[in-house]
Amino acid sequence: MNASVLPGEQPAASLSGKELAATIRAQCAADAAELSASATPPRLVVVVATDDGSSVSYVRSIAKAAEKADIRCDIVDLGADAPEQLIADTLTALSDDDTVHGIILQTPLPAGLELQRLAAAIDPAKDVDGANPASLGFLAAGQPAFAPATAEAVIALLDHHGVEVAGKHTVVVGRSTVVGIPLSHLLLARNATVTVCHSRTPVLATHTTRGDVVVVAVGRPGLVTAEDVANGAVVVDVGTNVTDSGKLVGDVDADKVALKAGALTPVPGGVGPVTTALLLRHTITAAQATRVRVAG
Amino acid sequence: MNASVLPGEQPAASLSGKELAATIRAQCAADAAELSASATPPRLVVVVATDDGSSVSYVRSIAKAAEKADIRCDIVDLGADAPEQLIADTLTALSDDDTVHGIILQTPLPAGLELQRLAAAIDPAKDVDGANPASLGFLAAGQPAFAPATAEAVIALLDHHGVEVAGKHTVVVGRSTVVGIPLSHLLLARNATVTVCHSRTPVLATHTTRGDVVVVAVGRPGLVTAEDVANGAVVVDVGTNVTDSGKLVGDVDADKVALKAGALTPVPGGVGPVTTALLLRHTITAAQATRVRVAG
Repeated sequence: MNASVLPGEQPAASLSGKELAATIRAQCAADAAELSASATPPRLVVVVATDDGSSVSYVRSIAKAAEKADIRCDIVDLGADAPEQLIADTLTALSDDDTVHGIILQTPLPAGLELQRLAAAIDPAKDVDGANPASLGFLAAGQPAFAPATAEAVIALLDHHGVEVAGKHTVVVGRSTVVGIPLSHLLLARNATVTVCHSRTPVLATHTTRGDVVVVAVGRPGLVTAEDVANGAVVVDVGTNVTDSGKLVGDVDADKVALKAGALTPVPGGVGPVTTALLLRHTITAAQATRVRVAG
Repeated sequence: MNASVLPGEQPAASLSGKELAATIRAQCAADAAELSASATPPRLVVVVATDDGSSVSYVRSIAKAAEKADIRCDIVDLGADAPEQLIADTLTALSDDDTVHGIILQTPLPAGLELQRLAAAIDPAKDVDGANPASLGFLAAGQPAFAPATAEAVIALLDHHGVEVAGKHTVVVGRSTVVGIPLSHLLLARNATVTVCHSRTPVLATHTTRGDVVVVAVGRPGLVTAEDVANGAVVVDVGTNVTDSGKLVGDVDADKVALKAGALTPVPGGVGPVTTALLLRHTITAAQATRVRVAG
């Protein structure tokens, strides 16, 4: 993709996620109407145990998007000091509730609690953000499972813009179980060669400059700059950081990288909107599966 | 490790697994005696649904090793044309049987059956070869779980010989869910930077020559030769292939690679014996956990 573009000759193509997100949301709305008409109104529940500002506003944006697509979305706020057992019991009760199709456990969690441990209480069939380690394992094993929406959004965005990863060297910066690890599984399943770097990689540029596609998912503004990527590389910025002045920025020094990369996802407006749309898509898929099971 | 050795100057150090395997087996025997004395005799069951010769002899070698360590090992042979439901029901019954601590579902399986799908019926607490996708997910998420014995054997062997992987670039050739994928998780957990290559990687040497540590787990004799590795690299050969003349060989062209690598695992006598020993170790660990649960 644009491998022949000389640095500075023209800015990188912008891999916007807005159009794709709108398409997914529109399809979700159509599917939701159909489900509701056949007495299976899709329902998503977000369990919150934090008063972190950016987390609360993220949850509100999910609820708003769900509402627009005619998907019922309930927010269950357990408070920032919710004990582990209360959260686990809530997830178990929601897993057992036939009217609930999708369950999200929002982070951050109260101090000392681990997402992976708690998320094991989410029925994999309702685990629309792929947080249960069992979902991650099924994903890695090529079995049906919901991927974490952010990881899947990266693949969906590349697909949408016609970026082929098969046979390419893709370099993932970040080894989190919500993005880096599941993304590496999705990329391997697409026949990419995959390198995973992280905070303990001595010199990031050693690896990132070798990537045809570089995905950055760390949460540190300016982590990747022009010297860190090859001419013409495709760069996907998964970071969403709020600066002191309240501006939303990614992990990539976008102005500089845009002069060297072949293509770059914007922040905001890149991976983010696709992620939210995929949470709705997964909820619809889970609801459709319920209907099939009942009908069968 | 031996990075200053010139090619041909001296052969690579041989990373034998025999000594480590013997140590693990001796500890297992001691632990097994203690468990039996406290009325929890450890018990491993291998479920077989194949008449493949090398598979049958591998299972026999596990049973023999278990017997020597005073671990009861039963082989449940369901026949090479066992239907899926029979295998699943057998795994479920063994999972529910309190006298059984470890369960292995041997491959190959009857045509059309998938290990990952069937292994979901193995209780993760008894999944001593880490075949249940849930075990893989817990492993990836840093939660307690049994790793596939072969993947763990690679790490144990490197540890035993003092090869540090933290901060190193490790290149894994092979993306199977029994070796390559879980090994990549274990290496990331040890703070290695990890590249996973596979059959769809256009030029393997592009990546393998960059590795401080190269692990080959494909199942093709001679896949990796001297040109594919860097001077002084540590090479781990997971392959176990039987040649037409009945000789056991790995995936690495050992004679040539030994003149360039800093260290190389032999085949046989490298990863293999450690793998078998770790299956016993996991069975003991599972039995000890049962005793703790009962006592608690």
